[in-house]
Amino acid sequence: MEHKYVYLFSEGNETMRELLGGKGANLAEMVRLGMPVPQGFTVSTEACTRYYEDGKKIGGDILAQIETALTEIEKINGKKFGDTTNPLLVSVRSGARASMPGMMDTVLNLGMNDDVAAGLIAGNPDPKFARFVFDSYRRFIQMFSDVVMEISKKKFEEIIDELKKEKGVKDDIDLDVNDMKALVAKFKAFYKEQRGVDFPADPKVQLLESVKAVFRSWDNPRANEYRRMNQIPYSWGTAVNVQPMVYGNLNNNSGTGVAFTRDPATGAKALFGEYLINAQGEDVVAGVRTPNPIAQLKNDMPEVYAQFVAIAQKLEEHYRDMQDMEFTIENGTLYMLQTRNGKRTAAAALKVAIDLVSEGVITEEEAVLRVEPQQLDALLHPQFDSKALKSANPIGKALPASPGAACGRVVFTAADAAEWAGRGEKVVLCRLETSPDDIKGMAVSEGILTVRGGMTSHAAVVARGMGTCCVSGCGEIEMHMDEKYFLLAGKKYSEGDYISLDGSTGKIYGEAIKTVDADLSGDFGLFMSWADAARTMKVRTNADTPADTIQAVKFGAEGIGLCRTEHMFFGGNRIKSMRKMIVARTLEAREAALAEILPFQQQDFTEMYEALEARPMTVRFLDPPLHEFLPSKANEIADLAVDLGMTAEELAKIVESLHEVNPMMGHRGCRLAVSYPEIAKMQTTAVINAALAVTAAHPEYNIVPEIMIPLVGEIKELKYVKDIVTSTADALIAAAGSDMHYKVGTMIEIPRAAVLADQIATEAEFFSFGTNDLTQMTFGFSRDDAGKFLQSYYDTKIFEDDPFERLDQIGVGKLIEVAVSGGRKTRPDIKLGICGEHGGDPSSVKFCFKLGLDYVSCSPFRVPIAKLAAAQAAIAAKK
Amino acid sequence: MEHKYVYLFSEGNETMRELLGGKGANLAEMVRLGMPVPQGFTVSTEACTRYYEDGKKIGGDILAQIETALTEIEKINGKKFGDTTNPLLVSVRSGARASMPGMMDTVLNLGMNDDVAAGLIAGNPDPKFARFVFDSYRRFIQMFSDVVMEISKKKFEEIIDELKKEKGVKDDIDLDVNDMKALVAKFKAFYKEQRGVDFPADPKVQLLESVKAVFRSWDNPRANEYRRMNQIPYSWGTAVNVQPMVYGNLNNNSGTGVAFTRDPATGAKALFGEYLINAQGEDVVAGVRTPNPIAQLKNDMPEVYAQFVAIAQKLEEHYRDMQDMEFTIENGTLYMLQTRNGKRTAAAALKVAIDLVSEGVITEEEAVLRVEPQQLDALLHPQFDSKALKSANPIGKALPASPGAACGRVVFTAADAAEWAGRGEKVVLCRLETSPDDIKGMAVSEGILTVRGGMTSHAAVVARGMGTCCVSGCGEIEMHMDEKYFLLAGKKYSEGDYISLDGSTGKIYGEAIKTVDADLSGDFGLFMSWADAARTMKVRTNADTPADTIQAVKFGAEGIGLCRTEHMFFGGNRIKSMRKMIVARTLEAREAALAEILPFQQQDFTEMYEALEARPMTVRFLDPPLHEFLPSKANEIADLAVDLGMTAEELAKIVESLHEVNPMMGHRGCRLAVSYPEIAKMQTTAVINAALAVTAAHPEYNIVPEIMIPLVGEIKELKYVKDIVTSTADALIAAAGSDMHYKVGTMIEIPRAAVLADQIATEAEFFSFGTNDLTQMTFGFSRDDAGKFLQSYYDTKIFEDDPFERLDQIGVGKLIEVAVSGGRKTRPDIKLGICGEHGGDPSSVKFCFKLGLDYVSCSPFRVPIAKLAAAQAAIAAKK
Repeated sequence: MEHKYVYLFSEGNETMRELLGGKGANLAEMVRLGMPVPQGFTVSTEACTRYYEDGKKIGGDILAQIETALTEIEKINGKKFGDTTNPLLVSVRSGARASMPGMMDTVLNLGMNDDVAAGLIAGNPDPKFARFVFDSYRRFIQMFSDVVMEISKKKFEEIIDELKKEKGVKDDIDLDVNDMKALVAKFKAFYKEQRGVDFPADPKVQLLESVKAVFRSWDNPRANEYRRMNQIPYSWGTAVNVQPMVYGNLNNNSGTGVAFTRDPATGAKALFGEYLINAQGEDVVAGVRTPNPIAQLKNDMPEVYAQFVAIAQKLEEHYRDMQDMEFTIENGTLYMLQTRNGKRTAAAALKVAIDLVSEGVITEEEAVLRVEPQQLDALLHPQFDSKALKSANPIGKALPASPGAACGRVVFTAADAAEWAGRGEKVVLCRLETSPDDIKGMAVSEGILTVRGGMTSHAAVVARGMGTCCVSGCGEIEMHMDEKYFLLAGKKYSEGDYISLDGSTGKIYGEAIKTVDADLSGDFGLFMSWADAARTMKVRTNADTPADTIQAVKFGAEGIGLCRTEHMFFGGNRIKSMRKMIVARTLEAREAALAEILPFQQQDFTEMYEALEARPMTVRFLDPPLHEFLPSKANEIADLAVDLGMTAEELAKIVESLHEVNPMMGHRGCRLAVSYPEIAKMQTTAVINAALAVTAAHPEYNIVPEIMIPLVGEIKELKYVKDIVTSTADALIAAAGSDMHYKVGTMIEIPRAAVLADQIATEAEFFSFGTNDLTQMTFGFSRDDAGKFLQSYYDTKIFEDDPFERLDQIGVGKLIEVAVSGGRKTRPDIKLGICGEHGGDPSSVKFCFKLGLDYVSCSPFRVPIAKLAAAQAAIAAKK
Repeated sequence: MEHKYVYLFSEGNETMRELLGGKGANLAEMVRLGMPVPQGFTVSTEACTRYYEDGKKIGGDILAQIETALTEIEKINGKKFGDTTNPLLVSVRSGARASMPGMMDTVLNLGMNDDVAAGLIAGNPDPKFARFVFDSYRRFIQMFSDVVMEISKKKFEEIIDELKKEKGVKDDIDLDVNDMKALVAKFKAFYKEQRGVDFPADPKVQLLESVKAVFRSWDNPRANEYRRMNQIPYSWGTAVNVQPMVYGNLNNNSGTGVAFTRDPATGAKALFGEYLINAQGEDVVAGVRTPNPIAQLKNDMPEVYAQFVAIAQKLEEHYRDMQDMEFTIENGTLYMLQTRNGKRTAAAALKVAIDLVSEGVITEEEAVLRVEPQQLDALLHPQFDSKALKSANPIGKALPASPGAACGRVVFTAADAAEWAGRGEKVVLCRLETSPDDIKGMAVSEGILTVRGGMTSHAAVVARGMGTCCVSGCGEIEMHMDEKYFLLAGKKYSEGDYISLDGSTGKIYGEAIKTVDADLSGDFGLFMSWADAARTMKVRTNADTPADTIQAVKFGAEGIGLCRTEHMFFGGNRIKSMRKMIVARTLEAREAALAEILPFQQQDFTEMYEALEARPMTVRFLDPPLHEFLPSKANEIADLAVDLGMTAEELAKIVESLHEVNPMMGHRGCRLAVSYPEIAKMQTTAVINAALAVTAAHPEYNIVPEIMIPLVGEIKELKYVKDIVTSTADALIAAAGSDMHYKVGTMIEIPRAAVLADQIATEAEFFSFGTNDLTQMTFGFSRDDAGKFLQSYYDTKIFEDDPFERLDQIGVGKLIEVAVSGGRKTRPDIKLGICGEHGGDPSSVKFCFKLGLDYVSCSPFRVPIAKLAAAQAAIAAKK
């Protein structure tokens, strides 16, 4: 039998979403439920895929099936396509598996031509009806030309404007039937002028061209961009729904509207929506007329309203979720044109899910599945007070680099930020760009604003890690660092002036706007408790400071999966000692410098163990290449040389000698410990002493330090560094008369380590997948440089996702799988986790669950997101 | 039963080399053959491994077995260790599985103490004998102190020198018995002074300490270095041979010597060696006295000579190879102390192998196994005429960066090199360092000399690829580029002066020395014909120019496995057009620049197809990042800007915009073709048009162009570029009315491509493993930067080989295996090759054979080496 590509609504149901798209499946389901739906047919997503495979052609078999379906709906609706007495007019709409509102194209009133228009008018003597017919006709020409023939809508609007000017009228409504008729003629003439052929009068030609146009629109730039942002695969394709038209603009006994079964902003349980009498759907959206609240329909059309309320309730009960519906009333008859699970704010998502549980509609586990993990982000950051925001006007807009709202006084250096914050002032740090030197200042700021740098600049990455609001890359700012002011939108902002930032939109405000803190109790707390109950995989956090740790614990982190100790080498005297260590030319000098750093590092670990209480912490040893700790500019080198008691020439030589062609693949990670075992020794001492001290104060914490060696690619390399760690640690523990245990493990972030994980596991007591580096090396491109070519990869659809945001499951994921099974073969109880930035990406978290990892680790602000994703994965697995 | 660690010579045989080491196994074999060998015992290599595992201690069980073996050899030799009337004195020598001459330690005359000396003298009233005993005694103290206690030999020599001064004599021989006795006392006193304890008198203590010292010496720096150079695993360990002493220095009826069954320099069949009467082995080596040619022994001791000749002949027959033997004659009795397959020059290796075949001793296939592939290298390059070399004195020495001998006139720029060479002059190009700009000049030079840069510098890598002699990194040179002269060893060398270079030793000569060309016929030709007969895997070459191609074909290349087209963008107008292409900001400008390059590139391909005749060629599309084609220094940018008709600022901005943090993982390879499809189009046109032209002239060549897309990591990426190639190629072929076939394949050089090779193979018609990049990405370190830390990796024995020289079979090799099986699964007839530098490394070639690759590809000068390695692998596989 030939493959079926076209389905009547009466042949489908809600489970056929993959084939029919969301809109098509739900229309079919409403038909099945006996609801008033204009009955049409759906050309399946498979037909779209075939269209692209066949070189953008619709195959003969599919054409024949469309033809047959058309005949069927002619029968069902008692109208005929192209018929002059009882013509069938249809809408042609896209409908993908996932909702992509406004991304693809729609053609309405299809089937219209001169004869059809004349026939329609002949059947109804009302002059208003004649105007309606020609209005519909001109709208069709306009839409078809735009969607199918790529003649911009705007040009047609210009023709309308001209006519209005000519007639001396203001609104479309003031144009009469003859004007509309004239417009149809003008539009057709313009079409011919543009395309050199007559506007197609044959309804079947109109239909096929429109179906092709919808297929084509799957591949338009805004659809591609939307898919990439929402991680919708290109390969899915879109379905096309062909449905008989019903007209809300037929007369005053007609209308159209949209409604939600609950409030999509708050989640409150009450029908929520709006409608317009004598209007088409686009009029509601366009906002020329102000729609009425849905409740008013009860007065306008009590019977229709009652019917709609009943349908809405039935749909919510049927789908067991809040519904978003479109309807049209044609001459007193209600037609349902769409229903779908309604999009909602994060707060509403929580409330609806919790209410549905208390209403007994869904279980707690189902509720957990109802909230998109990513959505929670909005609930975790401070937001502007909505009332205060109303009166505020942005002075600029740049990249929304790290979400949340911030309000504070402008400062220009990290040191100033620390000083002002020390006095209890809230500050916003404004910089050309940030560097590791600024971390301490960034940590005490409410928000960060930079002139240079993108979404993955230092400022952006660090701010996201800290959960601090950041707007980056605002090139409009004219910065005067030395004089401590900047110019933006013609105004001067000096140190101490108030500004506000919205890190979720990138907007910059030149005034103070009140912010409100995130509320982690209430609905959020209850919902997360359900997620936690369902979840089996642990969620740890990436935290490098005591402050991060406290924040992460508040967000529910179950330990630290990655403490990047390099951040402990910056700030104040530490960086000076670190630099002394780097320029040291003897072991003794190096050890002396390290001895200066030890107490600081030990103090950090002590405070973190205290903040964690009994939770575990994985400490990663020094990872970045040493040149990152030294300046590169001549004047900075000269200054530092004085500090270090050497000549600028000597220091410049050292800086030069540390230069690397490919620093990402250079002298870093455990390679540093191999060259300078004394660094590993110092770090072991700091971790173990801190753990011993906190254990002495709180024996019940039962601390088991986890020391992690980065960038291992060879078992002997790990063993070499591990031997330094164990000999140091064992001596300290013995000297303290303690019986504390500790573990030594490794990052798996180099392809070779993944391939040889079975060997590596003979020494490593745990693996943590460093998916940032693993992604770089598996793909062979550097995160810092990929920006130069990734856009062409998106444009050509070679990539649909950024592999640094969403784990590449088939490539990088394959290596992780190999490592997981290799590690378990050697050491069945090996502890496995992931600590790359993917640890906070829901789809990647689900992948980790599938591999049976013990935990994921992510930045503090992503902990609830990861927990929810892990809970959803666990629930899905049970089914 | 307890594990056996100690073997009497009579318990072993030649097959036990792994356990007993080479020396031990051959001593045992000679015992088995009934030859006169002082019978001792061997402490196995496993004991050495145990020694290191046990924290540098010899286990009690091993000690007991040594004790037992000692008792056994006391019985066999009728002497007792430490006995004062008939004492046993022994030598303690290392003996690893592979010969490591001079790398480890030896102690002779062990078992000596005051009582033993007195007892020996009491048994022989000859005063000469007494002197001999004390001489042996003092030698023992000296050696033991040096080897076991790390007291330098030199200090003892100073004591001897003092005594000679005191006595007013010149040579050791002038010291009498009392002097020797005095030396023993002085030596013991010095030992006590240095170590604070008495010199150990107990022979068993002496023995165990010496055994430990030999084990320890396995780990000394020179042994580690030797192993790394010769790819001998650290894990093998060394055996220790304990053997009763025999004395060639007992009297004039005694002597010692070394001999080869054939001439190790030429391979001529005649006993070759030398001996000394009344001497110990070390005297022969030390060169204080001039030894006699072995033939003279026939006159001195006819019977012994006859016996030795018979033994030598028997040994060669037995081992079926040329033997290298050590012997000692004690008071008229011959003792064999060692035999092994003799080391020999490349020429000798060929001659011996060929002679053994014609003598019917070995088969042709066995002959093929007898020559180390690496050895052939010496036969492929020009060498200095040995007579001319004798009178020459080097003026400097630097790194032997690319082998062979060169003689020519000094030039200082690539342009001068081209100009002089154009006039028929032989030139040596002298530069501070070389860059891609110099390639054309390098290609026409006899040799290259650089002031800066190591073995992997641009000059070194390119020269090796070209087979051109290169000496690099001669920091002693004071270079005056602008005035066209350099100073070295106090002399001035100006443009046009003759110098000579030895790229195999790094020596620089300030004069012309005659060179002789490599002879590829004769023994070499015959031998290679046997190798070719046995070989199944093809050997192609990496060649980028018509000249390379001609050279490679001469060396027997069976095609080109890698033509790196980037080299075709340098030189003359091409680089200018290339730069125009890079700075172009419109597609049209880019296409115009590419159109200028097309005819040059097409001409190169045409000449290469002609040189190859019917052999295949794989052309790799442009690979390096574009910034490599632009200058980076301000003045060069300014000059180029004038050329390109833009401001220096504009050009500087472009250069800046192309800057990459990690260029190795940046915008290169097929990523260039994705961004600029027109480059791939131009290159396809060049390849296909060249192939069409040569096919038209030589239809019998049946050319099937192979186009290779580099740096692929994702199937869609390959498909995208392949589509450009096929649409371009198909159109050209159709337009020419030809039915030529072509193939499109890819490099596998990114871990992701290896992991997803099954997918990649749906588009790729062949794979070529780019093991340079694959090694970088699998290990996660950049070749350019690894130099900074690799030394600590060798020092700590984390690495024993340079993974860029010898393929990492377990890590990188594992990914290759995955790719091979993935590729074959999808496309059973997929053609597989390797084109990284490993393609010329014998052990890597053997690995490729094991994986069943169709071919390896290497630089022209490594083709014979790869062919021999492939032949050996095929022969080994048959067994």
